[in-house]
Amino acid sequence: MKVKVGINGYGTIGKRVAWAVMKQPDMELVGVVKTRPDWEVLSAVKMGLKLFTLKDRVRDFHEFGVEVHGTVEDLIRSVDVVIDATPEDVGKTYKPLYEALGRKAIFQGGEEEDVAEVSFNALVNYSEALGKKFVRVVSCNTTGLLRVIHALSRVSKVRSVRGVIVRRGADLKEVKKGPIEGLVLNPPKPPSHHALDVKTVIKDLDIITYAVVAPTTLAHIHTLYVRLSQPATKEAVIDALNATPRILLVNGKILKSTAELRELARDLGRPNGDIYENVVWEDSVWVNNDEVMLTYAVHQEAIVVPENVDAVRAVTSLVKDPLESIKITDETLGIKRWL
Amino acid sequence: MKVKVGINGYGTIGKRVAWAVMKQPDMELVGVVKTRPDWEVLSAVKMGLKLFTLKDRVRDFHEFGVEVHGTVEDLIRSVDVVIDATPEDVGKTYKPLYEALGRKAIFQGGEEEDVAEVSFNALVNYSEALGKKFVRVVSCNTTGLLRVIHALSRVSKVRSVRGVIVRRGADLKEVKKGPIEGLVLNPPKPPSHHALDVKTVIKDLDIITYAVVAPTTLAHIHTLYVRLSQPATKEAVIDALNATPRILLVNGKILKSTAELRELARDLGRPNGDIYENVVWEDSVWVNNDEVMLTYAVHQEAIVVPENVDAVRAVTSLVKDPLESIKITDETLGIKRWL
Repeated sequence: MKVKVGINGYGTIGKRVAWAVMKQPDMELVGVVKTRPDWEVLSAVKMGLKLFTLKDRVRDFHEFGVEVHGTVEDLIRSVDVVIDATPEDVGKTYKPLYEALGRKAIFQGGEEEDVAEVSFNALVNYSEALGKKFVRVVSCNTTGLLRVIHALSRVSKVRSVRGVIVRRGADLKEVKKGPIEGLVLNPPKPPSHHALDVKTVIKDLDIITYAVVAPTTLAHIHTLYVRLSQPATKEAVIDALNATPRILLVNGKILKSTAELRELARDLGRPNGDIYENVVWEDSVWVNNDEVMLTYAVHQEAIVVPENVDAVRAVTSLVKDPLESIKITDETLGIKRWL
Repeated sequence: MKVKVGINGYGTIGKRVAWAVMKQPDMELVGVVKTRPDWEVLSAVKMGLKLFTLKDRVRDFHEFGVEVHGTVEDLIRSVDVVIDATPEDVGKTYKPLYEALGRKAIFQGGEEEDVAEVSFNALVNYSEALGKKFVRVVSCNTTGLLRVIHALSRVSKVRSVRGVIVRRGADLKEVKKGPIEGLVLNPPKPPSHHALDVKTVIKDLDIITYAVVAPTTLAHIHTLYVRLSQPATKEAVIDALNATPRILLVNGKILKSTAELRELARDLGRPNGDIYENVVWEDSVWVNNDEVMLTYAVHQEAIVVPENVDAVRAVTSLVKDPLESIKITDETLGIKRWL
């Protein structure tokens, strides 16, 4: 029997997770909630998704030429798990409804930590989310950090992480957001929230991050200076990165920018040009005794998609072994398989 | 008697250095070399500068409606020091001419280290340049790094520097340069040349830098993680930064971006909105035991201007004490004095 999934919110994350859930052999996407009829609804119509909306918006959709199947409450009642992909801080306003209707929910990283019992990353703490009612998938940058820290911890215990994050200013569709010129400290005072958010998953890690926002839409770039608890070799680090799911190494002689990376993803037919992996530049890996430096890209719109899929398996205890869930997700989404 | 200065090249650096040299009480700007008549020549005409050009370009200037005073050779012969502000790697092609005519020359950081006897930063190694024939003022990012490293070394010896540089993609006028979207690793393999260039001035420093190019024209941003040889306090670090010439602290509560910073410089009447200082965000300074983190902006077009002025005093031995030269330069250019 398949787990019934509903997605509340059909924006940047919701639409991608909808597509991913439909690919899962053990899940059924019952429908998605969209609160306003706009251009973004058209892909849902094209995919034949069942649309649900707020009670007082049904008519707006009808006038837009799109029929809905019911209300948000109707959808929630008919699923086992809700993936809440509503905008930042809106998820928490829905939590009472999920509770009242007795449904499990997966929130996104835009919500505060306390919205859920567990902040989640599939590689790091899948088991902690087993059977839980409310789980929060941490945000894109935090997910990127956690995967790399997890990979490096296969070499030896990570003693400290000092990172700089060059954030994309906005997603392509966010036409009211900036900057279109200049670099913005985000915020001026360290650490950026990413370090704190990593610690919601790895509690006692010594980590500082600093973030600068740049006028670009394509992806974030992280550069980390990491200290391990033991001397390492470059080979051991590369091997650990290669052996870690959702980390893809690329060659800087072939590809030097987030622009080429995203265009390659489009060329190779990834939906929306999406990149679910941390893309680590192999050439950027520098190891000196217990020090490791490396640089990778994080596609802000896509990296949490597989984590949401795994979170469904965890909260329903559908799959107990994290690596088994990750394997199913990654095979169905073509992760680490470009060709 | 004033030192006679000629500037070879009237582009981004040359025009700014021309303006700065004119402000010096102990220097006379004899003229500037411009190889092509274009929009950039108009400010030289407005300032009443004597223009010199290549022998075969005199007629082009005449047709453009601007008269030149003579050839490059004429200018070089009539000065004590040439500031070579020609494009990257062009300076070295002029060196034989400077040598043949027996004139001292100051090159820019776009040239290789071996073009000169000394790579120069006024704070770090002014004395090494005293009386030298050929000196190279290191590039904008390297100048920014050296000043901050110098300031931190007032707290205690700097053990290591690990930095990330978010570079501006191009200057405003460089309409053929990119990127206008995406982030570009520069290069993928560490270290970026900045770390190596710092070592042309501070030979034995343990420094790694990594550079990412962003679609912006206004300024670079550096974030450094530094280890000192002794535990420090935040107050000691702030005091050292404040006490160092050409480092200006700003408050991140008031001003969070390179855009606001450059616009403020324009609002306050700085020529071209130029910022000669390293602008360090005071809020970004983080100190933990022997570890220091901080972030600052480097205005790529302007930061080396005062260094070129000081280099003239060093090679002519006009002023022996670096702090005396720095004081004259900074007072005449209004450095660290916004209002």
